[in-house]
Amino acid sequence: MAVYTDVSDEELAAFVAGYDIGQVLSVKGIAEGVENSNFLLHTERGFYILTLYEKRVRQDDLPFFIGLMDHLARRGIICPEPVRMTSGETLGRLAGRPAAIVTFLDGIWVKRPTATHCRGVGSALAAFHKAGADFPIQRPNNLSLSGWRPLFEQAGDAADRVAAGLTDRTATALAELERDWPTGLPQGVIHADLFPDNVFFIGTKLSGLIDFYFACNDALAYDLAICLNAWCFEADGAFNLTKGQALIDGYEAQRTLTPAEVAALPILCRGSALRFMLTRLVDWLNVPPGALVKPKDPLEYDRKLAFHRRVSDARDYGLRR
Amino acid sequence: MAVYTDVSDEELAAFVAGYDIGQVLSVKGIAEGVENSNFLLHTERGFYILTLYEKRVRQDDLPFFIGLMDHLARRGIICPEPVRMTSGETLGRLAGRPAAIVTFLDGIWVKRPTATHCRGVGSALAAFHKAGADFPIQRPNNLSLSGWRPLFEQAGDAADRVAAGLTDRTATALAELERDWPTGLPQGVIHADLFPDNVFFIGTKLSGLIDFYFACNDALAYDLAICLNAWCFEADGAFNLTKGQALIDGYEAQRTLTPAEVAALPILCRGSALRFMLTRLVDWLNVPPGALVKPKDPLEYDRKLAFHRRVSDARDYGLRR
Repeated sequence: MAVYTDVSDEELAAFVAGYDIGQVLSVKGIAEGVENSNFLLHTERGFYILTLYEKRVRQDDLPFFIGLMDHLARRGIICPEPVRMTSGETLGRLAGRPAAIVTFLDGIWVKRPTATHCRGVGSALAAFHKAGADFPIQRPNNLSLSGWRPLFEQAGDAADRVAAGLTDRTATALAELERDWPTGLPQGVIHADLFPDNVFFIGTKLSGLIDFYFACNDALAYDLAICLNAWCFEADGAFNLTKGQALIDGYEAQRTLTPAEVAALPILCRGSALRFMLTRLVDWLNVPPGALVKPKDPLEYDRKLAFHRRVSDARDYGLRR
Repeated sequence: MAVYTDVSDEELAAFVAGYDIGQVLSVKGIAEGVENSNFLLHTERGFYILTLYEKRVRQDDLPFFIGLMDHLARRGIICPEPVRMTSGETLGRLAGRPAAIVTFLDGIWVKRPTATHCRGVGSALAAFHKAGADFPIQRPNNLSLSGWRPLFEQAGDAADRVAAGLTDRTATALAELERDWPTGLPQGVIHADLFPDNVFFIGTKLSGLIDFYFACNDALAYDLAICLNAWCFEADGAFNLTKGQALIDGYEAQRTLTPAEVAALPILCRGSALRFMLTRLVDWLNVPPGALVKPKDPLEYDRKLAFHRRVSDARDYGLRR
């Protein structure tokens, strides 16, 4: 939750004048997003979100992220749609930072998802994969297999300060993944971070996807594995098979998994659990003293990884064939 | 800028169901307000602000604050208007806190006010004073004369850590104010905190007043003195007579100051400068180490107080008669 940058009225008015959205009527910083500054913008034309991209987002990646939202919106995926300036551009500069205006999206993220929500997410994920198939820009996934060992080395022996044995367990899991990681699976644009806070619902109806700032090219089924981790475990650490079934059913209602994807699902789940464990671990070990933001618990994903290491068949996640 | 309280979806839906504003479509914490948690709420009926009152606001005062907004809105003052529940109430409870929904107000607060803005504020202040005349609830001003010595004692000798001689200067000014503070001036409901961040404009047109959480009963001209302090000094500390003229002209276009008010204006300006110096000083001395919010500079008001101690006539503020 953050607004990192102050924007003067004059700068804002000049920026908005580049769009065909009328005069600014109101602008309020919103307490959302960890990486960027977000403002709710009301103009004579309606409500919008104004985003200023702060340092943590690589500027070279912005054409991918903003182009992807534009591409998806044109193909019927409900997501923030970049508004074009009269020049045709979707990315400008404001207060010394890259900035974009996107449409305001209704909906609320669900703190306690039900199986109905999981089915909706599965279905939206597959629709996203299909809509992204002809997106022309590429962005490698730097948080996939090749990125994990550097993260693990960055944490080093400090991992054992977080939990006894964590270093050894992680070394074993990582070595297995490096040995067995699947290749040749169907590839495409994946969201790569479709956690509950990035999916809006109105009641039980999915009303949109947000936050495409981890999107990249990778195996489509890896995205499903991320969602199984993010949506189908209970607070007590138990895997909820009913939610897993709903998520996979929702996905397959839009796109059928190939036999290779089905076979790879357990290892993809292990990989994605390791990915979130490692990034959380590094964040955990780097929290500045007195920080207000509590980092997310890496051990949640250590426990999920342990679960996945006992799974050998996609049916254990809820695949019903 | 703050959201102090998380509200669950279920609690929010149940709270909003008490109003005739349709289903919740979106809720976003907004980075505004230091005392309370504020959310932008979109429902099927429109956009609203949902406020949760945190500990710093006395619950006993809420009927005054919310009743005042309701009273003013009915008399044509543009301000957030409390939305009534179907029960007729305007104040409820949400997440264990008093909570209210008010209408969303367009406009932007002006970081660098011009004389035109000052005229608008003067006019709006007088209209506020007239509209508040028949408001039936009373609330004493606990940050007026009787409140200053306790604040000064709270700061104690630590004041000299902020600036050399501040303790002595303040003691002298306070003693003078205690000796000379006027009585018998026209009384009524005053805003008591009508700083630029509490006045919205669209362009140069005033579009509304917000934040009534210091409003109370006191001398009406004291409110004008607060505005002279808040609106008519430049960043370099100089009093801008053109802005003072515009503020007073705007006020008198709606309500003529009495001779007693005119005579009292210099001492009221000294009093209000001391009031903000003292509350800022106490806040300054009580900043927790590592706090993210930079406290406001008490010395800004020490300098304004020094200016006012050299003024003996309301014409020095811009009164043109």
